[in-house]
Amino acid sequence: MRYELYYWPTIQGRGEYVRLALEEAEADYIDVARCRNGESKMMAMMNSRRLDTPPFAPPFLKTNKQIIAQVANILFYLGARHNLAPKPEAARLWVHQLQLTIADFVVEIHDTHHPLGSGLYYEDQKPAAKRRSEEFWDSRVPKFIGYFEGLIGHNKGHYVTGRRLTYVDLSLLQIVEGLRYAFPKRMKRFERKAPAIITLHDRVAARPNIRAYLESDRRIPFNEDGIFRHYSALDE
Amino acid sequence: MRYELYYWPTIQGRGEYVRLALEEAEADYIDVARCRNGESKMMAMMNSRRLDTPPFAPPFLKTNKQIIAQVANILFYLGARHNLAPKPEAARLWVHQLQLTIADFVVEIHDTHHPLGSGLYYEDQKPAAKRRSEEFWDSRVPKFIGYFEGLIGHNKGHYVTGRRLTYVDLSLLQIVEGLRYAFPKRMKRFERKAPAIITLHDRVAARPNIRAYLESDRRIPFNEDGIFRHYSALDE
Repeated sequence: MRYELYYWPTIQGRGEYVRLALEEAEADYIDVARCRNGESKMMAMMNSRRLDTPPFAPPFLKTNKQIIAQVANILFYLGARHNLAPKPEAARLWVHQLQLTIADFVVEIHDTHHPLGSGLYYEDQKPAAKRRSEEFWDSRVPKFIGYFEGLIGHNKGHYVTGRRLTYVDLSLLQIVEGLRYAFPKRMKRFERKAPAIITLHDRVAARPNIRAYLESDRRIPFNEDGIFRHYSALDE
Repeated sequence: MRYELYYWPTIQGRGEYVRLALEEAEADYIDVARCRNGESKMMAMMNSRRLDTPPFAPPFLKTNKQIIAQVANILFYLGARHNLAPKPEAARLWVHQLQLTIADFVVEIHDTHHPLGSGLYYEDQKPAAKRRSEEFWDSRVPKFIGYFEGLIGHNKGHYVTGRRLTYVDLSLLQIVEGLRYAFPKRMKRFERKAPAIITLHDRVAARPNIRAYLESDRRIPFNEDGIFRHYSALDE
Protein backbone atom coordinates (compact mmCIF):
# COMPACT_ATOMS: atom_id res chain seq x y z
CA MET A 1 0.00 0.00 0.00
CA ARG A 2 1.17 3.50 -0.85
CA TYR A 3 0.29 6.22 1.64
CA GLU A 4 -1.08 9.48 0.29
CA LEU A 5 0.03 12.51 2.29
CA TYR A 6 -2.03 15.66 1.81
CA TYR A 7 -0.48 18.94 2.82
CA TRP A 8 0.21 22.43 1.44
CA PRO A 9 2.80 21.97 -1.29
CA THR A 10 4.99 25.03 -0.70
CA ILE A 11 5.71 24.89 3.02
CA GLN A 12 7.16 22.52 5.59
CA GLY A 13 4.53 23.56 8.14
CA ARG A 14 2.83 20.89 10.19
CA GLY A 15 3.19 18.40 7.36
CA GLU A 16 6.93 18.23 7.97
CA TYR A 17 6.59 16.15 11.15
CA VAL A 18 4.77 13.54 9.08
CA ARG A 19 7.22 13.75 6.17
CA LEU A 20 10.15 13.15 8.53
CA ALA A 21 8.48 10.03 9.93
CA LEU A 22 7.65 8.65 6.48
CA GLU A 23 11.20 9.32 5.29
CA GLU A 24 12.89 7.75 8.31
CA ALA A 25 10.65 4.69 7.92
CA GLU A 26 11.32 4.47 4.16
CA ALA A 27 7.57 4.23 3.79
CA ASP A 28 6.04 4.19 0.34
CA TYR A 29 4.19 7.50 0.03
CA ILE A 30 3.33 10.31 -2.31
CA ASP A 31 3.09 13.94 -1.31
CA VAL A 32 -0.12 14.46 -3.25
CA ALA A 33 -0.41 18.23 -3.37
CA ARG A 34 3.12 18.48 -4.80
CA CYS A 35 2.11 16.39 -7.81
CA ARG A 36 0.30 17.64 -10.89
CA ASN A 37 -3.23 18.82 -10.00
CA GLY A 38 -2.56 17.59 -6.49
CA GLU A 39 -3.59 20.73 -4.67
CA SER A 40 -7.02 20.73 -6.33
CA LYS A 41 -7.37 17.08 -5.37
CA MET A 42 -6.62 18.00 -1.77
CA MET A 43 -9.12 20.87 -1.78
CA ALA A 44 -11.77 18.64 -3.33
CA MET A 45 -11.32 16.13 -0.51
CA MET A 46 -11.51 18.85 2.11
CA ASN A 47 -14.69 20.28 0.64
CA SER A 48 -16.36 16.98 -0.07
CA ARG A 49 -19.65 16.43 1.67
CA ARG A 50 -19.56 12.72 1.05
CA LEU A 51 -16.70 11.79 3.35
CA ASP A 52 -17.76 10.19 6.63
CA THR A 53 -14.61 11.34 8.37
CA PRO A 54 -13.65 14.67 6.78
CA PRO A 55 -10.45 16.28 8.05
CA PHE A 56 -10.70 19.72 9.63
CA ALA A 57 -7.41 20.81 8.06
CA PRO A 58 -4.26 19.41 6.41
CA PRO A 59 -2.09 17.49 6.95
CA PHE A 60 -3.98 14.26 6.52
CA LEU A 61 -2.88 10.81 5.50
CA LYS A 62 -4.89 8.45 3.35
CA THR A 63 -4.28 4.77 3.85
CA ASN A 64 -6.13 2.01 2.02
CA LYS A 65 -8.73 2.03 4.79
CA GLN A 66 -9.04 5.46 6.30
CA ILE A 67 -8.20 9.13 6.32
CA ILE A 68 -6.29 10.30 9.40
CA ALA A 69 -5.75 13.94 10.34
CA GLN A 70 -3.98 15.81 13.15
CA VAL A 71 -0.19 15.42 13.17
CA ALA A 72 0.07 13.65 16.51
CA ASN A 73 -2.71 11.26 15.52
CA ILE A 74 -1.01 10.43 12.21
CA LEU A 75 2.27 9.81 14.03
CA PHE A 76 0.52 7.62 16.58
CA TYR A 77 -0.77 5.53 13.68
CA LEU A 78 2.56 5.42 11.82
CA GLY A 79 4.63 4.83 14.95
CA ALA A 80 2.92 1.53 15.64
CA ARG A 81 3.41 0.30 12.08
CA HIS A 82 6.92 1.50 11.28
CA ASN A 83 8.86 0.93 14.43
CA LEU A 84 8.90 4.61 15.34
CA ALA A 85 7.33 4.05 18.77
CA PRO A 86 7.29 1.30 21.37
CA LYS A 87 4.47 -1.25 21.24
CA PRO A 88 3.22 -1.60 24.87
CA GLU A 89 0.26 0.66 25.52
CA ALA A 90 1.73 2.68 28.40
CA ALA A 91 4.86 3.47 26.41
CA ARG A 92 2.84 4.30 23.29
CA LEU A 93 0.75 6.78 25.27
CA TRP A 94 3.87 8.32 26.81
CA VAL A 95 5.45 8.94 23.41
CA HIS A 96 2.13 10.31 22.12
CA GLN A 97 1.91 12.60 25.15
CA LEU A 98 5.33 14.04 24.31
CA GLN A 99 4.24 14.61 20.72
CA LEU A 100 1.15 16.47 21.95
CA THR A 101 3.42 18.67 24.06
CA ILE A 102 5.46 19.43 20.93
CA ALA A 103 2.19 20.24 19.11
CA ASP A 104 1.38 22.79 21.82
CA PHE A 105 4.82 24.31 21.37
CA VAL A 106 4.29 24.53 17.60
CA VAL A 107 1.14 26.62 18.16
CA GLU A 108 3.14 29.00 20.34
CA ILE A 109 5.90 29.21 17.73
CA HIS A 110 3.33 30.17 15.09
CA ASP A 111 1.80 32.75 17.40
CA THR A 112 5.09 34.64 17.74
CA HIS A 113 4.46 36.15 14.30
CA HIS A 114 0.65 35.98 14.34
CA PRO A 115 -0.50 36.75 17.89
CA LEU A 116 -3.63 38.58 16.75
CA GLY A 117 -4.81 35.79 14.48
CA SER A 118 -3.87 34.19 11.19
CA GLY A 119 -6.42 36.26 9.26
CA LEU A 120 -4.22 39.37 9.52
CA TYR A 121 -0.85 39.91 7.84
CA TYR A 122 2.31 39.96 9.94
CA GLU A 123 2.85 43.56 8.90
CA ASP A 124 -0.43 44.47 10.56
CA GLN A 125 0.56 43.00 13.90
CA LYS A 126 4.25 43.75 14.27
CA PRO A 127 4.21 45.41 17.71
CA ALA A 128 2.10 42.56 19.10
CA ALA A 129 4.42 40.03 17.47
CA LYS A 130 7.42 41.66 19.12
CA ARG A 131 5.86 41.44 22.56
CA ARG A 132 4.77 37.89 22.03
CA SER A 133 8.24 36.92 20.80
CA GLU A 134 9.82 38.42 23.93
CA GLU A 135 7.51 36.41 26.17
CA PHE A 136 8.15 33.32 24.04
CA TRP A 137 11.92 33.50 24.45
CA ASP A 138 11.84 34.66 28.08
CA SER A 139 9.58 31.96 29.39
CA ARG A 140 8.19 29.51 26.86
CA VAL A 141 11.33 28.29 25.07
CA PRO A 142 13.17 27.65 28.36
CA LYS A 143 10.13 25.79 29.70
CA PHE A 144 9.49 23.57 26.65
CA ILE A 145 13.09 22.90 25.63
CA GLY A 146 14.11 22.62 29.28
CA TYR A 147 11.50 19.90 29.73
CA PHE A 148 12.91 17.76 26.90
CA GLU A 149 16.49 18.54 28.00
CA GLY A 150 15.56 17.13 31.41
CA LEU A 151 14.06 13.98 29.90
CA ILE A 152 17.19 13.22 27.90
CA GLY A 153 19.32 13.68 31.03
CA HIS A 154 17.04 11.48 33.07
CA ASN A 155 16.86 8.64 30.56
CA LYS A 156 20.55 8.71 29.76
CA GLY A 157 19.78 7.16 26.38
CA HIS A 158 20.64 8.39 22.96
CA TYR A 159 17.05 9.47 22.34
CA VAL A 160 14.34 11.25 24.31
CA THR A 161 12.61 8.15 25.58
CA GLY A 162 15.67 5.94 25.79
CA ARG A 163 17.80 3.82 23.55
CA ARG A 164 15.53 3.77 20.53
CA LEU A 165 14.50 6.47 18.14
CA THR A 166 10.84 7.53 18.11
CA TYR A 167 8.92 10.04 16.03
CA VAL A 168 9.36 12.49 18.93
CA ASP A 169 13.09 12.67 18.20
CA LEU A 170 12.34 13.44 14.56
CA SER A 171 10.01 16.24 15.59
CA LEU A 172 12.61 17.72 17.93
CA LEU A 173 15.09 17.81 15.05
CA GLN A 174 12.56 19.94 13.19
CA ILE A 175 12.03 22.22 16.21
CA VAL A 176 15.78 22.91 16.43
CA GLU A 177 16.08 23.46 12.67
CA GLY A 178 13.09 25.77 12.71
CA LEU A 179 14.16 27.87 15.68
CA ARG A 180 17.61 28.27 14.08
CA TYR A 181 15.97 29.48 10.88
CA ALA A 182 13.41 31.82 12.44
CA PHE A 183 15.48 33.24 15.29
CA PRO A 184 19.18 32.71 14.43
CA LYS A 185 20.54 35.21 16.97
CA ARG A 186 18.35 34.23 19.89
CA MET A 187 18.76 30.54 19.19
CA LYS A 188 22.54 30.81 19.02
CA ARG A 189 22.57 32.29 22.53
CA PHE A 190 20.05 29.78 23.80
CA GLU A 191 21.76 26.64 22.52
CA ARG A 192 24.45 26.81 25.19
CA LYS A 193 21.71 26.10 27.73
CA ALA A 194 20.40 23.06 25.87
CA PRO A 195 23.38 20.86 24.99
CA ALA A 196 21.47 17.59 25.15
CA ILE A 197 18.85 18.74 22.63
CA ILE A 198 21.59 19.88 20.26
CA THR A 199 23.39 16.54 20.57
CA LEU A 200 20.07 14.83 19.89
CA HIS A 201 19.49 17.03 16.85
CA ASP A 202 22.92 16.14 15.44
CA ARG A 203 22.39 12.44 16.06
CA VAL A 204 19.02 12.45 14.29
CA ALA A 205 20.33 14.58 11.41
CA ALA A 206 23.12 12.05 10.85
CA ARG A 207 20.80 9.11 10.38
CA PRO A 208 21.15 8.01 6.75
CA ASN A 209 17.49 8.35 5.75
CA ILE A 210 17.10 11.72 7.41
CA ARG A 211 20.33 13.05 5.99
CA ALA A 212 19.35 11.93 2.50
CA TYR A 213 15.92 13.54 2.90
CA LEU A 214 17.27 16.86 4.19
CA GLU A 215 19.62 17.05 1.21
CA SER A 216 16.95 16.12 -1.32
CA ASP A 217 14.53 18.40 -3.11
CA ARG A 218 11.71 16.64 -1.29
CA ARG A 219 12.69 18.87 1.65
CA ILE A 220 11.01 22.22 0.99
CA PRO A 221 13.19 25.14 2.14
CA PHE A 222 11.99 27.25 5.07
CA ASN A 223 10.12 30.37 3.97
CA GLU A 224 7.86 33.10 5.29
CA ASP A 225 4.61 31.23 4.67
CA GLY A 226 5.30 28.41 7.12
CA ILE A 227 5.24 28.01 10.88
CA PHE A 228 8.86 29.09 11.36
CA ARG A 229 9.36 32.48 9.75
CA HIS A 230 12.40 34.68 9.86
CA TYR A 231 11.52 38.27 10.62
CA SER A 232 14.60 40.10 11.82
CA ALA A 233 12.55 42.47 14.01
CA LEU A 234 11.54 39.50 16.16
CA ASP A 235 15.11 38.23 16.57
CA GLU A 236 16.69 41.06 18.56
CA MET B 1 -8.71 1.04 41.27
CA ARG B 2 -9.34 4.67 42.07
CA TYR B 3 -8.08 7.21 39.52
CA GLU B 4 -6.27 10.27 40.81
CA LEU B 5 -6.94 13.39 38.76
CA TYR B 6 -4.46 16.22 39.18
CA TYR B 7 -5.52 19.67 38.10
CA TRP B 8 -5.68 23.23 39.40
CA PRO B 9 -8.31 23.22 42.14
CA THR B 10 -10.04 26.55 41.49
CA ILE B 11 -10.79 26.43 37.78
CA GLN B 12 -12.55 24.24 35.25
CA GLY B 13 -9.82 24.84 32.69
CA ARG B 14 -8.52 21.90 30.70
CA GLY B 15 -9.23 19.56 33.57
CA GLU B 16 -12.95 19.92 32.96
CA TYR B 17 -12.92 17.74 29.82
CA VAL B 18 -11.49 14.94 31.93
CA ARG B 19 -13.87 15.55 34.83
CA LEU B 20 -16.86 15.33 32.49
CA ALA B 21 -15.66 11.98 31.16
CA LEU B 22 -15.03 10.56 34.63
CA GLU B 23 -18.44 11.76 35.81
CA GLU B 24 -20.36 10.39 32.83
CA ALA B 25 -18.59 7.05 33.28
CA GLU B 26 -19.27 7.01 37.04
CA ALA B 27 -15.59 6.23 37.41
CA ASP B 28 -14.08 6.04 40.87
CA TYR B 29 -11.76 9.06 41.12
CA ILE B 30 -10.51 11.77 43.39
CA ASP B 31 -9.76 15.30 42.31
CA VAL B 32 -6.50 15.39 44.24
CA ALA B 33 -5.68 19.09 44.30
CA ARG B 34 -9.12 19.88 45.72
CA CYS B 35 -8.42 17.72 48.76
CA ARG B 36 -6.45 18.76 51.83
CA ASN B 37 -2.78 19.41 50.91
CA GLY B 38 -3.62 18.21 47.44
CA GLU B 39 -2.17 21.12 45.56
CA SER B 40 1.23 20.67 47.20
CA LYS B 41 1.06 17.00 46.34
CA MET B 42 0.44 17.94 42.71
CA MET B 43 3.32 20.42 42.68
CA ALA B 44 5.64 17.86 44.26
CA MET B 45 4.82 15.39 41.50
CA MET B 46 5.39 17.99 38.81
CA ASN B 47 8.75 18.98 40.27
CA SER B 48 9.91 15.47 41.05
CA ARG B 49 13.09 14.43 39.32
CA ARG B 50 12.47 10.80 40.03
CA LEU B 51 9.51 10.23 37.72
CA ASP B 52 10.33 8.43 34.48
CA THR B 53 7.37 10.00 32.71
CA PRO B 54 6.91 13.47 34.25
CA PRO B 55 3.95 15.48 32.93
CA PHE B 56 4.71 18.82 31.30
CA ALA B 57 1.61 20.40 32.84
CA PRO B 58 -1.70 19.51 34.52
CA PRO B 59 -4.11 17.90 34.01
CA PHE B 60 -2.71 14.45 34.51
CA LEU B 61 -4.30 11.21 35.59
CA LYS B 62 -2.65 8.64 37.81
CA THR B 63 -3.78 5.07 37.35
CA ASN B 64 -2.34 2.12 39.24
CA LYS B 65 0.22 1.70 36.48
CA GLN B 66 1.03 5.02 34.90
CA ILE B 67 0.71 8.78 34.81
CA ILE B 68 -1.00 10.16 31.71
CA ALA B 69 -1.03 13.80 30.70
CA GLN B 70 -2.52 15.86 27.84
CA VAL B 71 -6.31 16.01 27.83
CA ALA B 72 -6.82 14.22 24.52
CA ASN B 73 -4.42 11.47 25.56
CA ILE B 74 -6.22 10.98 28.88
CA LEU B 75 -9.56 10.79 27.08
CA PHE B 76 -8.13 8.32 24.57
CA TYR B 77 -7.15 6.12 27.52
CA LEU B 78 -10.47 6.55 29.36
CA GLY B 79 -12.60 6.18 26.25
CA ALA B 80 -11.39 2.67 25.64
CA ARG B 81 -12.05 1.58 29.21
CA HIS B 82 -15.34 3.29 29.98
CA ASN B 83 -17.34 2.94 26.82
CA LEU B 84 -16.86 6.56 25.85
CA ALA B 85 -15.40 5.72 22.45
CA PRO B 86 -15.76 2.94 19.90
CA LYS B 87 -13.32 0.03 20.08
CA PRO B 88 -12.16 -0.58 16.45
CA GLU B 89 -8.89 1.21 15.76
CA ALA B 90 -10.06 3.37 12.84
CA ALA B 91 -13.05 4.65 14.82
CA ARG B 92 -10.92 5.25 17.93
CA LEU B 93 -8.49 7.37 15.90
CA TRP B 94 -11.37 9.28 14.33
CA VAL B 95 -12.84 10.20 17.71
CA HIS B 96 -9.36 11.10 18.97
CA GLN B 97 -8.82 13.29 15.91
CA LEU B 98 -12.00 15.22 16.71
CA GLN B 99 -10.82 15.70 20.29
CA LEU B 100 -7.50 17.07 19.02
CA THR B 101 -9.44 19.53 16.87
CA ILE B 102 -11.34 20.63 19.98
CA ALA B 103 -8.00 21.00 21.79
CA ASP B 104 -6.83 23.36 19.03
CA PHE B 105 -10.01 25.36 19.44
CA VAL B 106 -9.46 25.59 23.21
CA VAL B 107 -6.04 27.18 22.62
CA GLU B 108 -7.69 29.78 20.39
CA ILE B 109 -10.37 30.44 22.99
CA HIS B 110 -7.70 31.07 25.61
CA ASP B 111 -5.81 33.38 23.26
CA THR B 112 -8.80 35.70 22.87
CA HIS B 113 -7.95 37.16 26.28
CA HIS B 114 -4.20 36.45 26.26
CA PRO B 115 -2.97 36.98 22.68
CA LEU B 116 0.39 38.37 23.79
CA GLY B 117 1.15 35.51 26.12
CA SER B 118 0.00 34.11 29.44
CA GLY B 119 2.84 35.81 31.32
CA LEU B 120 1.10 39.19 31.02
CA TYR B 121 -2.16 40.26 32.66
CA TYR B 122 -5.26 40.70 30.57
CA GLU B 123 -5.31 44.38 31.54
CA ASP B 124 -1.92 44.78 29.86
CA GLN B 125 -3.11 43.38 26.54
CA LYS B 126 -6.67 44.66 26.16
CA PRO B 127 -6.40 46.22 22.68
CA ALA B 128 -4.71 43.08 21.35
CA ALA B 129 -7.37 40.94 23.02
CA LYS B 130 -10.11 42.96 21.34
CA ARG B 131 -8.59 42.46 17.89
CA ARG B 132 -8.02 38.79 18.50
CA SER B 133 -11.61 38.35 19.74
CA GLU B 134 -12.95 39.97 16.59
CA GLU B 135 -10.95 37.62 14.40
CA PHE B 136 -12.02 34.71 16.59
CA TRP B 137 -15.74 35.42 16.16
CA ASP B 138 -15.49 36.47 12.52
CA SER B 139 -13.65 33.46 11.26
CA ARG B 140 -12.60 30.88 13.84
CA VAL B 141 -15.89 30.17 15.64
CA PRO B 142 -17.80 29.73 12.37
CA LYS B 143 -15.06 27.42 11.07
CA PHE B 144 -14.75 25.21 14.16
CA ILE B 145 -18.39 25.07 15.19
CA GLY B 146 -19.46 24.85 11.55
CA TYR B 147 -17.27 21.79 11.16
CA PHE B 148 -18.97 19.95 14.03
CA GLU B 149 -22.38 21.19 12.92
CA GLY B 150 -21.67 19.59 9.53
CA LEU B 151 -20.64 16.30 11.11
CA ILE B 152 -23.85 16.03 13.10
CA GLY B 153 -25.88 16.75 9.99
CA HIS B 154 -23.95 14.18 7.97
CA ASN B 155 -24.20 11.39 10.53
CA LYS B 156 -27.84 12.03 11.33
CA GLY B 157 -27.29 10.47 14.72
CA HIS B 158 -27.94 11.85 18.14
CA TYR B 159 -24.25 12.42 18.75
CA VAL B 160 -21.30 13.75 16.76
CA THR B 161 -20.04 10.39 15.56
CA GLY B 162 -23.39 8.66 15.36
CA ARG B 163 -25.80 6.91 17.64
CA ARG B 164 -23.57 6.58 20.66
CA LEU B 165 -22.15 9.17 23.02
CA THR B 166 -18.37 9.69 23.03
CA TYR B 167 -16.10 11.94 25.07
CA VAL B 168 -16.19 14.37 22.11
CA ASP B 169 -19.86 15.10 22.84
CA LEU B 170 -19.02 15.82 26.47
CA SER B 171 -16.30 18.24 25.38
CA LEU B 172 -18.66 20.02 23.00
CA LEU B 173 -21.10 20.53 25.89
CA GLN B 174 -18.28 22.32 27.69
CA ILE B 175 -17.44 24.43 24.63
CA VAL B 176 -21.05 25.65 24.40
CA GLU B 177 -21.28 26.30 28.14
CA GLY B 178 -17.98 28.18 28.06
CA LEU B 179 -18.75 30.34 25.05
CA ARG B 180 -22.08 31.26 26.63
CA TYR B 181 -20.31 32.29 29.81
CA ALA B 182 -17.44 34.21 28.20
CA PHE B 183 -19.28 35.86 25.32
CA PRO B 184 -23.01 35.88 26.18
CA LYS B 185 -24.02 38.49 23.58
CA ARG B 186 -21.98 37.16 20.71
CA MET B 187 -22.92 33.58 21.47
CA LYS B 188 -26.62 34.39 21.63
CA ARG B 189 -26.44 35.78 18.10
CA PHE B 190 -24.31 32.90 16.88
CA GLU B 191 -26.45 30.07 18.23
CA ARG B 192 -29.09 30.57 15.54
CA LYS B 193 -26.48 29.42 13.03
CA ALA B 194 -25.62 26.26 14.94
CA PRO B 195 -28.88 24.54 15.86
CA ALA B 196 -27.44 21.01 15.77
CA ILE B 197 -24.68 21.83 18.25
CA ILE B 198 -27.23 23.39 20.61
CA THR B 199 -29.49 20.35 20.37
CA LEU B 200 -26.45 18.19 21.08
CA HIS B 201 -25.57 20.35 24.08
CA ASP B 202 -29.07 19.99 25.50
CA ARG B 203 -29.08 16.24 24.95
CA VAL B 204 -25.76 15.79 26.74
CA ALA B 205 -26.74 18.14 29.58
CA ALA B 206 -29.88 16.05 30.17
CA ARG B 207 -27.97 12.81 30.71
CA PRO B 208 -28.46 11.87 34.34
CA ASN B 209 -24.80 11.69 35.36
CA ILE B 210 -23.94 14.93 33.63
CA ARG B 211 -26.94 16.76 35.02
CA ALA B 212 -26.12 15.57 38.53
CA TYR B 213 -22.51 16.66 38.11
CA LEU B 214 -23.39 20.12 36.75
CA GLU B 215 -25.68 20.70 39.73
CA SER B 216 -23.16 19.45 42.28
CA ASP B 217 -20.42 21.39 44.02
CA ARG B 218 -17.89 19.22 42.23
CA ARG B 219 -18.55 21.51 39.25
CA ILE B 220 -16.40 24.59 39.86
CA PRO B 221 -18.15 27.78 38.65
CA PHE B 222 -16.67 29.62 35.68
CA ASN B 223 -14.37 32.45 36.72
CA GLU B 224 -11.73 34.80 35.33
CA ASP B 225 -8.79 32.51 36.00
CA GLY B 226 -9.90 29.77 33.61
CA ILE B 227 -9.88 29.29 29.85
CA PHE B 228 -13.31 30.86 29.36
CA ARG B 229 -13.33 34.34 30.89
CA HIS B 230 -16.02 36.94 30.71
CA TYR B 231 -14.62 40.36 29.90
CA SER B 232 -17.43 42.57 28.65
CA ALA B 233 -15.06 44.59 26.44
CA LEU B 234 -14.49 41.45 24.34
CA ASP B 235 -18.20 40.72 23.94
CA GLU B 236 -19.36 43.66 21.90
